[in-house]
Amino acid sequence: MKLEMICTGEEVLSGQIVDTNAAWFADTMMNKGIELQLRTTVGDRMDDLVNLFIERSKHADVILVNGGLGPTTDDLSAEALALALGEELIEDEDWRLHLMELFKKIGRKIPANMMKQCLMPSSAIRVHNSEGTAPGFRAKLNKAWLFFTPGVPIEFKAMVEQEFIPFIEETYRPAQATRLHKLLTLGHGESFLADKLNEMAIPEGITLGYRPSAPHVEIKLFARGDDAIKQLPAFIEEVKNTLGTAVVTQNCPSIAQAVHEMLLKKNLSLSIAESCTGGMLTSQLIEFAGSSSYLQQGLVTYSNQAKQKVLGISAEILDTHGAVSIECAKALALNARALGDNDYALATTGIAGPDGGTDDKPVGTVCIALANRDTCWVQTIQLKNRSRTIVRVMSCAVALDMLRRALLSEEVIVPYSFIPCSDSLVEHPI
Amino acid sequence: MKLEMICTGEEVLSGQIVDTNAAWFADTMMNKGIELQLRTTVGDRMDDLVNLFIERSKHADVILVNGGLGPTTDDLSAEALALALGEELIEDEDWRLHLMELFKKIGRKIPANMMKQCLMPSSAIRVHNSEGTAPGFRAKLNKAWLFFTPGVPIEFKAMVEQEFIPFIEETYRPAQATRLHKLLTLGHGESFLADKLNEMAIPEGITLGYRPSAPHVEIKLFARGDDAIKQLPAFIEEVKNTLGTAVVTQNCPSIAQAVHEMLLKKNLSLSIAESCTGGMLTSQLIEFAGSSSYLQQGLVTYSNQAKQKVLGISAEILDTHGAVSIECAKALALNARALGDNDYALATTGIAGPDGGTDDKPVGTVCIALANRDTCWVQTIQLKNRSRTIVRVMSCAVALDMLRRALLSEEVIVPYSFIPCSDSLVEHPI
Repeated sequence: MKLEMICTGEEVLSGQIVDTNAAWFADTMMNKGIELQLRTTVGDRMDDLVNLFIERSKHADVILVNGGLGPTTDDLSAEALALALGEELIEDEDWRLHLMELFKKIGRKIPANMMKQCLMPSSAIRVHNSEGTAPGFRAKLNKAWLFFTPGVPIEFKAMVEQEFIPFIEETYRPAQATRLHKLLTLGHGESFLADKLNEMAIPEGITLGYRPSAPHVEIKLFARGDDAIKQLPAFIEEVKNTLGTAVVTQNCPSIAQAVHEMLLKKNLSLSIAESCTGGMLTSQLIEFAGSSSYLQQGLVTYSNQAKQKVLGISAEILDTHGAVSIECAKALALNARALGDNDYALATTGIAGPDGGTDDKPVGTVCIALANRDTCWVQTIQLKNRSRTIVRVMSCAVALDMLRRALLSEEVIVPYSFIPCSDSLVEHPI
Repeated sequence: MKLEMICTGEEVLSGQIVDTNAAWFADTMMNKGIELQLRTTVGDRMDDLVNLFIERSKHADVILVNGGLGPTTDDLSAEALALALGEELIEDEDWRLHLMELFKKIGRKIPANMMKQCLMPSSAIRVHNSEGTAPGFRAKLNKAWLFFTPGVPIEFKAMVEQEFIPFIEETYRPAQATRLHKLLTLGHGESFLADKLNEMAIPEGITLGYRPSAPHVEIKLFARGDDAIKQLPAFIEEVKNTLGTAVVTQNCPSIAQAVHEMLLKKNLSLSIAESCTGGMLTSQLIEFAGSSSYLQQGLVTYSNQAKQKVLGISAEILDTHGAVSIECAKALALNARALGDNDYALATTGIAGPDGGTDDKPVGTVCIALANRDTCWVQTIQLKNRSRTIVRVMSCAVALDMLRRALLSEEVIVPYSFIPCSDSLVEHPI
């Protein structure tokens, strides 16, 4: 089965927005064992769309088309398909009623142009949109099924998962069973990981893939065929042994989610004090429903005055050691924990840049502390030559990894080849 | 002149890396008044490459091909072009000598596979690479010039600027000048905005585009040709008058950035108290370098206990009105402002869901307060049937919009058709 994608929209073609839908789709299909063959990106011009639909439908078996289903004049997909098919656009009565009911429920008038979304070529089959007002549709042109999806990411993803994947799984039976296992790593580069894994004997039918996406490199172990699937569990264990502390989660997309689940399960509470990470750490946990049951507070004490007033950091620490110091990070964690009498506290303080660095403490110097009721772990990491955003993202990941390791009763401070640690401390202050 | 781009490489096709070259190229050409017509992304398979070169060369005048010029086995561009042309690959003698001299100068032996880069189809014309060892080349196939460039961004950009642009400027007459103006809107749907703008007379040569991306819909005004460009400023004003308070920024990608710039410029300080937005609001400002000069603190008082201990919210407010109330939001903003004696404070408290709603206060009820030294503005917005993430994202946007309006001395609380306001309050508590 030859799969292609067509992305529509001037803003995607002109590079004004990054096409996250395209990357997500290729990755999602890859996880199902289906490779994307070709992707074409085209603007909002009728002739280009019609010609492209006709041309690609002679080569591909399935073409996922993204975008152009909305109510405005630059949404041309349905009309372009009708021209390519040589058909009329007709109104989908069911969807019209669906929309009328939807707007009635929320007590709002239907905007005049909304009904444009109910139009599709006469041979097209409507595809349900569970998240928005524009339905998708699919139609056969030449040898290909063209499957039209909305551009809004949340609507697009839902439609791919709920409608597109079942459709191709039903229409094109996979030749072989496949299984995918994902290992998330932190703190090591793709070549470092590949060098280690290249020394291993990889069972036939299993392939390794790497997907770097800051702060992680995800390793995908893909097994194709029953024999390979049988050998997968033992191979996973071998890979984990080879990589040691580099692996942080399995089949879980973030350390934040792993920590969230552990805190809930163990019924433990957490307090956070942030400086350079600036709310990002707290926000990563509050993203998950139920976080209110363990997260007491996340105090972004950004200024020195806030550190003193809100978390009682002494003038002595700030004057002698500075806000970015092992001592300050330790005090932030201890005081944040004590303030809510919580089981754990995390603290970050550092120089995210691009300015504010010194010879002693260059941009990218970040001190991270974890405290529980009897121990405090602190380390200073050096994130040289990284952007402000990456310094913050990496610092959050290291902080959450320290907490994750503590919750698993593992060594809390471990070496990361990509994130040098310049100083560390383990104390039992109480 | 019809310009297309072909991007090669599995890692680009599979979305493992973001294709920054493609976005940069489209933008660079747009600045020259030349629109990219189509972009095709293809993996490292010989047949796909050959077929694509042949097919696209029947449609385009110029095709910029990016990637696949390196020395490894998955660099197939030169060979694929030779097959498409029906020609032999021959070695470019001059470039071989150039490379030998280059390596002699740095005192290193030439790697064995390096000489592969000197091979190109017999009719191809070599294009200089000022930054690397792989030369580019161009050749005519069917009606198109195919122009091959290296994938390494620094080499690619240098070759486009030094070689590609001069080539097309010499070969094709300059196209029409173009200009783009962007208006960011908040709180209204794409169809609501389109309905309003469709009533206007749009000058010839100007097109309107909409890009919804939560929490905003961006409106793009695109002018093509000198006449349209001349009329653009007056038309922008007309659009702004028509949309009124819906427009929140111009040619600026977020309210956070607009607020950041205003606070810096006006030398005003800010304190933040968050509950349901959970650090997202603070993090959006700390994203910008220099935010430390105005942002005192961002206190995520997630639990009631934290609201009491850290921000002194009285038990009476929490017991009588609840944590999600106009009264609590007001107290959070007033106390956060007082704590650091700041010029402004923002506060959010709400029910992000999916659980925790009641009949009185359903999921999506969010109270947002802004305080300065003599006034406090509070409103309760209702974000029904939105995901936890969208409730948080929209709440941050409304909070920042209130501050933005205050900084501009505009009405602070305005109606948003997509975000019903169920209650509001303006007080002068001091």
